[in-house]
Amino acid sequence: MYKLYYAPGSCALASHIALEEAGAAYTAERLDFKANQQNSPEYLAINPKGRVPSLVTDRGILTETPAMLAFIAQTFPQAKLAPLDDPFAFAQAQAFNSYLCSTVHVAHAHKGRGYRWATEETSFADMKRMVPNSVGACFALIERGMLRGPWVMGEHYTICDPYLYTIALWLEGDSVDLATLPKVADHVRRMSERPAVKKVMAEQKA
Amino acid sequence: MYKLYYAPGSCALASHIALEEAGAAYTAERLDFKANQQNSPEYLAINPKGRVPSLVTDRGILTETPAMLAFIAQTFPQAKLAPLDDPFAFAQAQAFNSYLCSTVHVAHAHKGRGYRWATEETSFADMKRMVPNSVGACFALIERGMLRGPWVMGEHYTICDPYLYTIALWLEGDSVDLATLPKVADHVRRMSERPAVKKVMAEQKA
Repeated sequence: MYKLYYAPGSCALASHIALEEAGAAYTAERLDFKANQQNSPEYLAINPKGRVPSLVTDRGILTETPAMLAFIAQTFPQAKLAPLDDPFAFAQAQAFNSYLCSTVHVAHAHKGRGYRWATEETSFADMKRMVPNSVGACFALIERGMLRGPWVMGEHYTICDPYLYTIALWLEGDSVDLATLPKVADHVRRMSERPAVKKVMAEQKA
Repeated sequence: MYKLYYAPGSCALASHIALEEAGAAYTAERLDFKANQQNSPEYLAINPKGRVPSLVTDRGILTETPAMLAFIAQTFPQAKLAPLDDPFAFAQAQAFNSYLCSTVHVAHAHKGRGYRWATEETSFADMKRMVPNSVGACFALIERGMLRGPWVMGEHYTICDPYLYTIALWLEGDSVDLATLPKVADHVRRMSERPAVKKVMAEQKA
């Protein structure tokens, strides 16, 4: 039995969907970010970084979305969530996820979490103004060259798909117009129709 | 035969060392960042993100350090650069590398690449002032809870080690005092004594 710590609206959604798609036995534990629960002593004992997601397993605790997604794919091979027998194809999937975590998510985070990298209100405002452009540029690259369609890696649904979906849900709040990104928009629609996604979204919104 | 595109002083060093440790047949191609070669049409055709590293293989091009490191470990299993037969241990190694790419490298990048996330000189200066604290906090976590010693994952050298070494080399320039990080300092010293590291450092400095 796995236990996933998440916060609604966070990137933990990707791992939540992957656990559901894999048919894993898990529970999902919500953290209240408004009450700063991610920085409570109890949660810092689970994840000293004070972030979500965290995945409690019988071997110990895992963090970091790309690592958790690969773990879920490898632990539930029958779900075929990654090209596990092909190191090159697996690396392509991992490269996509790495780009999402280190570049796309980071660009987005400058909208509301500028205090991670600066101290002045004027800097926060400057960062915030740039988000539509920086996130927009990332998604232009994704639209043009990374998202093969219908799924990220092509014909097969993989661990890249719930992660892209998760971050694409932030586009409206980041003032990036989905209408300029037809492949991404189609991907969001396809994702939202999957039973696993419907179930997880309902749980996170409950 | 692989071809690695790198720039001296960049995170491409991690993959360069890993290729050398793996005994891979490769060549290393240097880009001149001062001449903005990473944004030349020729290089953008290889990596549209305009970043290093890129790894040209006979199957196609790979990017993103954590993905390339896992690829090298999986492609050269005899080098034992990752716990390939244990998804949980592999995920722990990947989580460490994901933290380096999405949090530690990003904190560092605010020293000289603030233009990725803001437009004003005052913001760049503000970001720059925070780097010793933000990078320092990341490395305090690494020192306290992530670096098991003597290697990142404990007794066995893995793909986490050249990546940590690469980023630890930036600490002096980031005004983080290595003397406050004895385990990290010991790791840097151990790494610098490895023949593969000596060879790659000499090549990158030539």
